[in-house]
This record gives sequence, structure tokens and C-alpha cells, in this order.
Amino acid sequence: MSLSLLPKEEKFFELFEMQARHNTDAAKTFRELLGNWSLQSPAFDKLRDIEHEADITAHEIIDKLNRTFVTPFDREDIHELASKMDDIVDIVQSLSLRMQLYGVQHVTEDLVAMTDTLLQAVDCIRKAVPHLKDLSETRRILDYCIEINRLENAGDNALAHAITKLFKGKPDPLEVMKWKEIYEVTEDAIDRCEDVANTIEGIVVKQG
Amino acid sequence: MSLSLLPKEEKFFELFEMQARHNTDAAKTFRELLGNWSLQSPAFDKLRDIEHEADITAHEIIDKLNRTFVTPFDREDIHELASKMDDIVDIVQSLSLRMQLYGVQHVTEDLVAMTDTLLQAVDCIRKAVPHLKDLSETRRILDYCIEINRLENAGDNALAHAITKLFKGKPDPLEVMKWKEIYEVTEDAIDRCEDVANTIEGIVVKQG
Amino acid sequence: MSLSLLPKEEKFFELFEMQARHNTDAAKTFRELLGNWSLQSPAFDKLRDIEHEADITAHEIIDKLNRTFVTPFDREDIHELASKMDDIVDIVQSLSLRMQLYGVQHVTEDLVAMTDTLLQAVDCIRKAVPHLKDLSETRRILDYCIEINRLENAGDNALAHAITKLFKGKPDPLEVMKWKEIYEVTEDAIDRCEDVANTIEGIVVKQG
Repeated sequence: MSLSLLPKEEKFFELFEMQARHNTDAAKTFRELLGNWSLQSPAFDKLRDIEHEADITAHEIIDKLNRTFVTPFDREDIHELASKMDDIVDIVQSLSLRMQLYGVQHVTEDLVAMTDTLLQAVDCIRKAVPHLKDLSETRRILDYCIEINRLENAGDNALAHAITKLFKGKPDPLEVMKWKEIYEVTEDAIDRCEDVANTIEGIVVKQG
Repeated sequence: MSLSLLPKEEKFFELFEMQARHNTDAAKTFRELLGNWSLQSPAFDKLRDIEHEADITAHEIIDKLNRTFVTPFDREDIHELASKMDDIVDIVQSLSLRMQLYGVQHVTEDLVAMTDTLLQAVDCIRKAVPHLKDLSETRRILDYCIEINRLENAGDNALAHAITKLFKGKPDPLEVMKWKEIYEVTEDAIDRCEDVANTIEGIVVKQG
Repeated sequence: MSLSLLPKEEKFFELFEMQARHNTDAAKTFRELLGNWSLQSPAFDKLRDIEHEADITAHEIIDKLNRTFVTPFDREDIHELASKMDDIVDIVQSLSLRMQLYGVQHVTEDLVAMTDTLLQAVDCIRKAVPHLKDLSETRRILDYCIEINRLENAGDNALAHAITKLFKGKPDPLEVMKWKEIYEVTEDAIDRCEDVANTIEGIVVKQG
């Protein structure tokens, strides 16, 4: 029986795809903000809007889950996938806000590099998610998951590099405090992509 | 069948109400401590006692859950509700301890304002929890949850305000380090109230 | 029916014991590194290897869980136990890396004391885990859990002591930033041991 015949379940997949798009929208907007950094950039409001939309989508999934008896895969996996996807948008938006509060004047190369890695990771999620509704393409989904694991490793190395540079010489402690947080939060966002990949992998294996 | 006829299940509700009271006790004691700040205040010991009591209550719920076959609502929701309620007391108590360790001399207005928000949030939880045993008052519970969401937003804004002020001018980095943590932990406590509200909302919707 | 007759389930126990050994290996290696601190120590690579091995074991448990229908205890408990055990190795390894990045020159007594507590806690886990396959020795398992709770308390006190000392006088803010993180992460590793103990206790009570 093809899952696509089940309209109720279909809705879950649509919502997950929407979440994945919110994530790529958020990461792209953040990347553009960094490329053209200004404390008055309209990107801050745009990120707030995306976060708000993503919140509604996540809420819709949880609400639907609570009201639905038959679900396309395990209830706890739906819950986990929805809340972990939502974490990514939340982190990116609150990071942008924090940088604005800190009155950051210049963006570092290390942050741009880490954001590029994040962008690739959310893009892998966006490409993997539509395959969840037809698990015959297992190999493809798992390849995206492996790629996300690789990106998470790259993120770890980029963080190590950034932290080493940050503490070198006699830096201003307040600047170190701000940038240590900015880098660690960015790496945390990439980590959440790996969490999402692990959840997706679990779903695939269970159905396999 | 009225749930109130089931003595075993009744016990869960009693324990949740007890947890909610531990939370309001902790938040009130912390607020009083701030209003009359002294590193020798007896409030530190009182908070330790409340935390200890709350720990026992949480343990009792989990233990009861592990030994009970029929539960008033989903096992994982009971687990989540108990552990998230417990987080709030834990955070408040360890925050007070940390402030004592830091030898904080004066309390800021921003912290008082954030604590007032926390106080309102735990009070909403305290009012919502007794309705869990009779889900006919769904609207009322959900209104409390909406109010907690509003308070969490207010907490976010208060944190943003406090952080901005903290970094202004040429502050002492050690003071910034301490107060950044104090504010963020307070906001985290408010966030946990929202987690509790989300769990409660989920329980209500499922039974609805 | 003796569980040892069920080869499939037996495998879960073997893997948990392996995880427990990875944890003690990691804590021991970290403790040796501290006793003979050098930024060029081969212990850094050894910790990376242990973390890698532990990752494979954790993955094997989750994968096995996803492919197995009948499990020796609740699925969510297996998942929780596996992922919380894995957290400990992860934290210890990333802490060692962070200390290397910070170019830490001398190790403090406080860190050594906290690491000794961690070592005792992971050793309790290692001793408790083999009893999971034969729950007739409930008392013994619970005694280990109580001991881990005691150690977690000791860890809290050690952290309080270390933080107080760290902020005393007019310390270099950058050093405070580094060591505050090092101490807090170590305490977090001990906390995770308590999480593992709680999970184990839950498993025992449910089967009891």
C-alpha cells in the first residue's frame, strides 16, 4: 500500500518538508547577513519572521500528532524529528539577535566558514526529508545522513580552529566572551543537524 | 468513569500539585532573597531544603510510574512533566548558590524583573496543574499555557535588555561573566516553565 | 526462563558492558593525562580513539534496537542508557581537546580531585551494568546507584570549591573563562553518571 494514498499521513510529510525549508531559509538569511553585515540589516526581522513561521509549523506537527491515531512512523520519532528541526531555526535566529545585542562590528572568516558548513548540513536535511515518504530510496537518505556526519566533523574542526585563534595573544576578554559564544552556538546548530540525521536514520532502519 | 474514583491515579495528581508548590516556594524564596539580599541570608538554606523536598517528590513520581501499570495519562508525559517541573526548582536553587559563591554584593533591577516574570510563570503552572485531573476545564488550562508562552517571551526581552546593559561601556570582564550567567540561568528557568506548559498542552490535546 | 538463553538479548548486555568499559578507559586515560600533563601527550590521541570506539558501540546498540522486536527491557530505556553512557566518553574527550586548544600549562588540584570523583562514578557504572542481565541482584545494583548519587553530590561541592577559588583575588579573566568551563564540563560528566544511574534504577524497579 502506497503511503501517498493516505491523505492524513501525507500531511505529516508536507509539514516536515516545510520545516526543512524554514531551516534552509534561516541558514541562508543568516549567511547573507554575514556577507553584508550591518546592525540595521533587515535580515534580523526576516530571521524573526522565519522563526515565527517555523514555530507554527512545529506546533502544527505536535498538535496533529496528539490528535492522530495512526501515524506514518513511530510517534516518538515524529516528535523528535519535529522538535529537533525546530531547534535549528531557533538557534540561528537567537544567534543573530545575540550578535546584534553585542553590537558586533565585523564578522570573522571563521564564522563565515562555519555558517557555510551549516548551510550545507541543512541543505542535506532538506534533500533527505522528501524521501521519508517513500522509503524505497533508503540508500539515498542514508547517504545524506553520512554527509551530515562528515559536515558535523568539519564543524568541530572549524570550531577548534576558531577557538585557538580567539585566545591567541592578549585578546580583549569581553571580545573573547562574545565570540566564543558565537562560535559555539554556530557549532551547536550544526550538531543539531546531526541529531536530525540520526533521527532520520533511525526511522529508515526501523522501516527497513 | 470519573478519574477521581481511582485512588492510585489520584496520587499522581497530588504529587504533581506538590511539585508545582515546590516550584512556587522556590521562586518566592528566591524573590524574597533578592529583595533583601545578603550572603548570610537564611534563604539559601531554605532553597536547599525546598530543592531536597522537590527531589523526593520527583523521585516518588518516577518510582510510582515504574511500579504502576495503569496511569492517568501517557507514561512518557508523566515522566516529562515530573522531570521538567523538577528542573525549575533545581535551576533556581543552583542559581542562588552560584550567586553566593560569586559573592554578589548588589542585586540588579534586571534580575528582579526577570524573577518577577518567573514567579508569574510558576504561578500559572500551579494554577493549571490541579485541572489536569478533570480535563473538562480544557479551556482554562490552555489559557494558563498561553499566558506562560507570553511570559516566556517577556523573559526573552528582559534578557536581551539585561545583556545589552551589561556589555555597555567598559565593564569589568569578571562581572560580565558572572552576571551574564545569572541572567541566562534565570531566563532558562522561565524557558522550563514553557516546556512544562507544552507538556501540559500535549496531555490536554491528547485527551480532548 | 534465564535471559542468558536468549542470544539476541545477550548481545545488548555485552554492548552495554563494552560501553561501560569505554567510559572507564576514557576517565582513566584522562586522569593519567592530568597526572602527567603535557600538550604533546599521546593521551589526546588515545582519548580520540576511545571516543571513536565508543561511538561505534553506541551506534551498534541503537541500530540493533531499531532492528530487534523483542528487547530485554523497554526500548526507550535501552535508547536512554546507550546514549547517556555515550555522553560521558564524548564529554571527557572533548574536554581534553579543549584543554589542549587552550594551551593549558598546569593542571589544578581541584580538577584532579573532580576527575577522581568521575573515575569512581564510572567505575560504579561498570560494576552495576553486568548485573542488569540477572536482576536477582537488585540490591547490589541499587547500592551502586546510591553511591553514584553520593559521588554526584561530592562533585557539586568540589565544583563550588573550585569556582570560589577561581574568582578569588584579581584573576586574569581569560584564565577564569577557561577554567570555569573546564570545571563545569568535568562536573557535567559526573552528572551524566547520575543520569545513567537513574536510568539503571528505573530499569531495575520496572522489572522488580
